[in-house]
Amino acid sequence: MRVIVNIQLKEGVLDPQGKAVHHALSSLKFNEVQEVRIGKQIILDINETDKKVALERVQVMCEELLANTVIENYTIDFPAC
Amino acid sequence: MRVIVNIQLKEGVLDPQGKAVHHALSSLKFNEVQEVRIGKQIILDINETDKKVALERVQVMCEELLANTVIENYTIDFPAC
Repeated sequence: MRVIVNIQLKEGVLDPQGKAVHHALSSLKFNEVQEVRIGKQIILDINETDKKVALERVQVMCEELLANTVIENYTIDFPAC
Repeated sequence: MRVIVNIQLKEGVLDPQGKAVHHALSSLKFNEVQEVRIGKQIILDINETDKKVALERVQVMCEELLANTVIENYTIDFPAC
C-alpha cells in the first residue's frame, strides 16, 4: 500500500528556502507569486493491506521520526490508485 | 489562488535521503516499510484568478526553476479550498 506524507512548516515559522525561491521567481519576472512555502513529500510503500492500521503506523512514524512536530505539520494521504 | 507543486525523483534515480530514512525506520522496528522516496512539496500563493492561466504559468516556473526535469517529475494541484 502506498502512503503519502506531506510535511510543511507551521504558520509563522520562517522558511528561508521558500523566501529564496520567491526571490528567484521574482527575478525571472514571475511577479504574480505572493508567497512560497517549501515542504517535504515522503512516499512510503508499506506491506500492509488494512488502511486503518497503515494510517496508525504512519502516524507513529511521523511523530517519532519523519516530522519535527514542534515546527512542522503533517498530513497523511492514500493515493487513489 | 493556491497552487501545490509536488516534485519527486524519477523512477530509477537513486534517492540516498529516502534510503537513509528507510534505514532509520527499520531501526525503529517499522519493518513493514518496503520503500521510501523523498521529494519536495512547494506551496505557491499566486495573484491570479484564472485556473488555466495559473496552471500554464506554474508549468513554466517548474520547467525554468522549481524542478530539475532531467531527474525529477512534477505534478501541479489546485487544493479544493
